[in-house]
Amino acid sequence: MRAEILAVGTEILLGNIVNTNAQYIANRLAELGIEVYHHSVVGDNPKRLKEAYDLAFKRSDLVIATGGLGPTKDDLTKEVAFEYFGKEAVLHENLLKNIEEFFKKINMPMGENNRKQALFPKDAIIMPNNNGTAPGCIIEEGNKILAVLPGPPREMKAMFEESLVPYLVKFQDSILVSKTLRIMGMGESKVAEIIDDILENSKNPTVAPYAKEGEVTLRITAKAKDEVKGNELIAPLEREIRNRLGIAVYGEDDSTLEEVLGKILVENILTIATAESCTGGLLAGSIINYPGISSVFKEGFVTYTNESKVERVNVRKETLDRFGAVSSETAAEMAEGAAKAAGADIGLSTTGIAGPGGGTEEKPVGLVYVGLYIKGEVKTKELNLIGNRQRIRNMTVMNTLDWLRRELLKNNVK
Amino acid sequence: MRAEILAVGTEILLGNIVNTNAQYIANRLAELGIEVYHHSVVGDNPKRLKEAYDLAFKRSDLVIATGGLGPTKDDLTKEVAFEYFGKEAVLHENLLKNIEEFFKKINMPMGENNRKQALFPKDAIIMPNNNGTAPGCIIEEGNKILAVLPGPPREMKAMFEESLVPYLVKFQDSILVSKTLRIMGMGESKVAEIIDDILENSKNPTVAPYAKEGEVTLRITAKAKDEVKGNELIAPLEREIRNRLGIAVYGEDDSTLEEVLGKILVENILTIATAESCTGGLLAGSIINYPGISSVFKEGFVTYTNESKVERVNVRKETLDRFGAVSSETAAEMAEGAAKAAGADIGLSTTGIAGPGGGTEEKPVGLVYVGLYIKGEVKTKELNLIGNRQRIRNMTVMNTLDWLRRELLKNNVK
Repeated sequence: MRAEILAVGTEILLGNIVNTNAQYIANRLAELGIEVYHHSVVGDNPKRLKEAYDLAFKRSDLVIATGGLGPTKDDLTKEVAFEYFGKEAVLHENLLKNIEEFFKKINMPMGENNRKQALFPKDAIIMPNNNGTAPGCIIEEGNKILAVLPGPPREMKAMFEESLVPYLVKFQDSILVSKTLRIMGMGESKVAEIIDDILENSKNPTVAPYAKEGEVTLRITAKAKDEVKGNELIAPLEREIRNRLGIAVYGEDDSTLEEVLGKILVENILTIATAESCTGGLLAGSIINYPGISSVFKEGFVTYTNESKVERVNVRKETLDRFGAVSSETAAEMAEGAAKAAGADIGLSTTGIAGPGGGTEEKPVGLVYVGLYIKGEVKTKELNLIGNRQRIRNMTVMNTLDWLRRELLKNNVK
Repeated sequence: MRAEILAVGTEILLGNIVNTNAQYIANRLAELGIEVYHHSVVGDNPKRLKEAYDLAFKRSDLVIATGGLGPTKDDLTKEVAFEYFGKEAVLHENLLKNIEEFFKKINMPMGENNRKQALFPKDAIIMPNNNGTAPGCIIEEGNKILAVLPGPPREMKAMFEESLVPYLVKFQDSILVSKTLRIMGMGESKVAEIIDDILENSKNPTVAPYAKEGEVTLRITAKAKDEVKGNELIAPLEREIRNRLGIAVYGEDDSTLEEVLGKILVENILTIATAESCTGGLLAGSIINYPGISSVFKEGFVTYTNESKVERVNVRKETLDRFGAVSSETAAEMAEGAAKAAGADIGLSTTGIAGPGGGTEEKPVGLVYVGLYIKGEVKTKELNLIGNRQRIRNMTVMNTLDWLRRELLKNNVK
């Protein structure tokens, strides 16, 4: 089966919003083993929309259209499709009731024009919308299939997974199973160098590297009869990659650094405290992203001023005078001071120049010192980061969390 | 002139990356007053790429292609275009020299296949790449124009602005000038209701609302001979909208809430401190996003545990026992305690249930109390938020900052 993705909406055409729906659907179709050769975008214009359907069905068996299911006159995706297939739309009373109930739930009056969202041909397969008012539908005509999904990504994704995927899997004789390995502290080119032969020679599964801000991911994808068989193909390759990359692999699939780290801390009952200057709370904010963290996160200090560094986390005034607030010495005292003030096993600290101002020749923007105190021992690390204020602060957080993770693993804390 | 945007690349087609280039280009072409009726995406496949050029030039005068200018055999965008127009590519020695110099600068050996990036027809208009190795080009053939830009967004945007815009403006007799108003504390439907007649009747300028996470933006766009004339058209409409929406308009264009708030605090020399429970540092982290904030941000306390609430910001144990950590009473004491401990004019606090666990019937997930202390007076506010942990924490930060902004404005602090 060959599919294509058609986004309908002037707001995408004019660049008001990014077409993230196309990426989501393309990615999922690849996983389902359905070929996609074209994406396109067309505005809320009946003539060009009809031409777009025509073109798409010349090239493909399955067209997935997103957007244009709203209640207004501009919303034409369904109407043009019904006309294209010569199908008459009739009111589906049960759908109308759902829409009325939706408005009751959110305590808003229903507009008369919302009735149009309950109009579908008799033989259409309805896809319910559990996150909004507009249902979607599947229309089969000969060996051509049109699926119409709503535009808002939250509604679209839920409907795609709940209704369209179960419909599509029956056409497949094989599926794609994939697993993503997440890597920190190693650039994409270095990763590619270490597993060069694997990237080059692997056919099934394939391995694709992708660089994101501050991390690299490796996606291993196997084509197989079912998920069990797919995972069997992936396992030995994953083992080999993990062997070569070692500690740099911090997690898999949707796991996050703070989740991986949080689990280690909670399972080993290691309490933690933070003292932050340049990151200003983002480090603590990130650690606390992990819901289970409350049993070990003692407290955080945002010591942006010199006075608070002295008063809260016991940095010595002479250290600040002699080495400055942005120094390895200050970072060390902040980390130790935070742990001791909070009565925690671990203290983490950050101090640096996030810019845009404040840099000097000796201490340029992007120079950051981070400190780590674990049970009596204190270490520091110098980071030289590039980018704007936001990026420097975010990269400091990621680097610091990854550093703690590595230090714990080195000490056999897992 | 009618344009369309063609993205070339299997990684977009398969949904590995989002086609943000299309959004950027579409948005800029709208500002330049160039009509766009289609976007499309095609993979690195010579046959389908040729068909895509053919289709695009049947519909449009200007085709802007992105991606596929790299050094590998997969990169075909230029090659297929030259063939499509029947033009022979020759080596441009000066471009080859640039590429060699680029590699020298980043201290890497140049691959033999990078030579291909210096191949262009004799009559192509070259667009230099100051951020990578692949130059772009413009090919004119009759009244058809093809512009080829590199795929990496950073390279694409720079080349678009530096070379393609200056080329395109000569075709324009008018430009689009736009201004965005940013609104918080009022939903999209409420905004639309208040300015319903303006949304309905305005032709030039037009006004388009757009809902983002936690805020609403209104984009006012005027078509005019030049920027001065455009701004003259925008001004009276902007004034009218601001009159009607009042304090809800917090900023314009690219300004952020923390920047707007930060400026008020710094200009009025109002010092601030924070005490955070559920936001865990994100509130301080957000305030500190504004680079000028260091003169007024005194310190932040991440008091995630009850002990730290008592010890650092002087919450009374009996308050915690009687009302609980998530209560208006605790929020009030945290805000006051933070301000007093730090010696600040203003104290802001957050305490709530961010989930996914920890909710009860009486205090469900999403219940958050925020506190505000200003010079002797303390207020609290109850928020009932929906969404996941991350969203609840982010919305708490946005609501709290906007609340402080409004309170300051109400007290004539601007």
